[in-house]
Amino acid sequence: MKLLKGNIIHAPTLEKLETIENGALLLEDDGTIREVLHAAPQDFDGRVYDCSGQLIMQSFADMHLHAPQFPNVGMGMDLPLLDWLKTYTFPVEAKFADLDYARRIYRRLAHDLIANGTTRVCMFSSLHTDATLVLMEELENAGVTGFVGKVNMDRNGGENLEETTEESIRETRRWLEGCRRFRFVRPIITPRFTPACTDELMTALGKIAAEQNLCVQSHLSENLDEIAWVRSLHPDCAQYWESYDKFGLWKSHTVMAHCIRSDERERTAIREAGVVVAHCPDSNINLCSGIAPVREMLNEGIHVTLGTDIAAGSSLAGSRMVTMSIQASKVRSFTDPAHPAFLTVPEAYYLGTTSGHRYFGAGSGFTPGDRLHAVVVDDRSFTETPWALSLPERLERALYTMNAANITAVWSEGRLVHTHEAKSVREHRTRIVARGAK
Amino acid sequence: MKLLKGNIIHAPTLEKLETIENGALLLEDDGTIREVLHAAPQDFDGRVYDCSGQLIMQSFADMHLHAPQFPNVGMGMDLPLLDWLKTYTFPVEAKFADLDYARRIYRRLAHDLIANGTTRVCMFSSLHTDATLVLMEELENAGVTGFVGKVNMDRNGGENLEETTEESIRETRRWLEGCRRFRFVRPIITPRFTPACTDELMTALGKIAAEQNLCVQSHLSENLDEIAWVRSLHPDCAQYWESYDKFGLWKSHTVMAHCIRSDERERTAIREAGVVVAHCPDSNINLCSGIAPVREMLNEGIHVTLGTDIAAGSSLAGSRMVTMSIQASKVRSFTDPAHPAFLTVPEAYYLGTTSGHRYFGAGSGFTPGDRLHAVVVDDRSFTETPWALSLPERLERALYTMNAANITAVWSEGRLVHTHEAKSVREHRTRIVARGAK
Repeated sequence: MKLLKGNIIHAPTLEKLETIENGALLLEDDGTIREVLHAAPQDFDGRVYDCSGQLIMQSFADMHLHAPQFPNVGMGMDLPLLDWLKTYTFPVEAKFADLDYARRIYRRLAHDLIANGTTRVCMFSSLHTDATLVLMEELENAGVTGFVGKVNMDRNGGENLEETTEESIRETRRWLEGCRRFRFVRPIITPRFTPACTDELMTALGKIAAEQNLCVQSHLSENLDEIAWVRSLHPDCAQYWESYDKFGLWKSHTVMAHCIRSDERERTAIREAGVVVAHCPDSNINLCSGIAPVREMLNEGIHVTLGTDIAAGSSLAGSRMVTMSIQASKVRSFTDPAHPAFLTVPEAYYLGTTSGHRYFGAGSGFTPGDRLHAVVVDDRSFTETPWALSLPERLERALYTMNAANITAVWSEGRLVHTHEAKSVREHRTRIVARGAK
Repeated sequence: MKLLKGNIIHAPTLEKLETIENGALLLEDDGTIREVLHAAPQDFDGRVYDCSGQLIMQSFADMHLHAPQFPNVGMGMDLPLLDWLKTYTFPVEAKFADLDYARRIYRRLAHDLIANGTTRVCMFSSLHTDATLVLMEELENAGVTGFVGKVNMDRNGGENLEETTEESIRETRRWLEGCRRFRFVRPIITPRFTPACTDELMTALGKIAAEQNLCVQSHLSENLDEIAWVRSLHPDCAQYWESYDKFGLWKSHTVMAHCIRSDERERTAIREAGVVVAHCPDSNINLCSGIAPVREMLNEGIHVTLGTDIAAGSSLAGSRMVTMSIQASKVRSFTDPAHPAFLTVPEAYYLGTTSGHRYFGAGSGFTPGDRLHAVVVDDRSFTETPWALSLPERLERALYTMNAANITAVWSEGRLVHTHEAKSVREHRTRIVARGAK
């Protein structure tokens, strides 16, 4: 048995934040949570990870991001969507035919995800089968778990970024064979979006998903032009979502990114099918797409999760994903005539952690029987406060102000996958030279 | 003479970003810019600061922030404005009667501003005269320049946070006496906002500002409740701004934070008086106040600058202040029926740097004759890109993704005030342990 000691902060449900000062997590040897303790036992025989004074938070689950766009983070944000795709996204994505390049970029991506406290992902790769396998290997080696999809795209792709239908189907099957060797990173069927896939390809993907019992991810109702395009391609579909439903791709555990323009009818279809929404606030604002009706979705009982949508989102950090969801919900609260209530900190923390973990079968917060997914945050180098903060206050401050330098340890699937020196960059490595400077 | 070598990026005007690959800044011994060079001279006799490969950017100017709220950063963001003031802002502000406390907090604040590349500020202190002098001393020692105001508040303050009118006037004069010893940090008259100051106090402040030729800063039209409150206090004023104008506080170089609800008539008054707007997008979204009509202001020729508005804003970083202004303008572009164009990266960079520096008399970008205000950003540890980036691309990426760890040097008023080890935190101090981990 092992013991992880510290201040525990987790969100069992959307409505409930649970905090334990000086608590502990009792773990099996394989990192399975045995018990959440309100105090560390006095005499404990096994290995102790002493994070006293620090925050033991749930790790983040990033439910929508594009791995091959990682080199583009923070670039081309001034461009309209189609120019951005043409100038940045597609040319960079095409580079992943080169496996050495893919290895370097994906190793860094996997490292940066873990260093920022993200241990579960639902991720798009490119259409390159071998680079996708490299991505999965690098994620697995670094300790990132979850789903990765080789992208399918047999029409309306960029230069060097389109497969034939036959090739796309054949490569998907080859990729699925290659995936068998991974334990923690599993495949997910990934048609890029309706306009990028012929009916023939969609039919085949629906069939493969059913045959091999695989989940599906794609994009839905991000903006009005896209919706009009889908309508022109599928005049028989009253709404965008039906273009997935038609081919057996609209089902329980299908992850749909964005859903900004999903009206009540589309949202009913989402809820009834058990489709999961990946809300990507940073991306949606950067691309001027709008802000999804998250409060309505939650009220209706839809399973909402969060995504960074790298590289239309400009930060890989899970903490930023959470606070952006709050800020976006505030914008919606003061611009939408219905003034929906904004997301509170505990709600947004739940969406960025538990809600995503639940997608992969985890329980509610730190749950006995689950392998541990946690991030340890050292907030003791933050500015002195005039009174001792409560744990909910420390959670809020951490989410708004932390970066990778404050994360001292990351646990994923029961394994300690990352450690980092505890003291802040500020204390160690900067020097103010002004006093008496010339 | 001295030479600062590197890639130069500055914004002489709102419309124009100027970049020089492998350029140099030739400086006088006191740090005054002699010349912006398109190549470093081959044989140079003086001291050389070699930042080759790095970005030499203008430092940031934070034109609105509350120093005593620094301990509250990232807390209480879920609360309505008045509860937030009561729970966090006022109790913490009251603590600054304690000079040891003030010294510790303000030393850290000054350090963090410089470490994040902000060298000019227009800042609110609390109403405490001595703590305000401590603040100015700490800023001056760290290399932060600009204006600081002892706050005046003789009504509607919090507990332990109100002066009598007579006290407020007397203390203001005592404070102004104490300011004479500072070289780079100068006083600015600071009525908190109209509802916090009696007519008698406002009259006295207008008189002091005129007598001592001082600038003025305050808040304007942040939200509708505040505007209604001002109207009830000053029924003779058709608009909020007139409650400052009445007392001689509405004049050239008056800085007004927010101006979210400033309509065309109020904006005309702003422009005609030479009042400067401090736009605080992060704060405005956190408090659900709305988003200021920045594009309209710029089109009308108003002098717009940016502020973090700590602690209603959740980040001290100038880079974040700049990108938040872009994101806020995008929200405005897709929610305002007139669809005003969003701020481009060069425009927002100009607003966060040159526009603020100009307020203090600086020229357009790096200008011969000005003392150097610059930040050196090492972006070489960022993710590998598939092609060599242009300097405008590197600027954009730096603004969206940098933090203090990427800032290797800061120059303020011609002085090198901060240095920092060049390598990224990632390279030095983190360890992925997953490979083979149990």
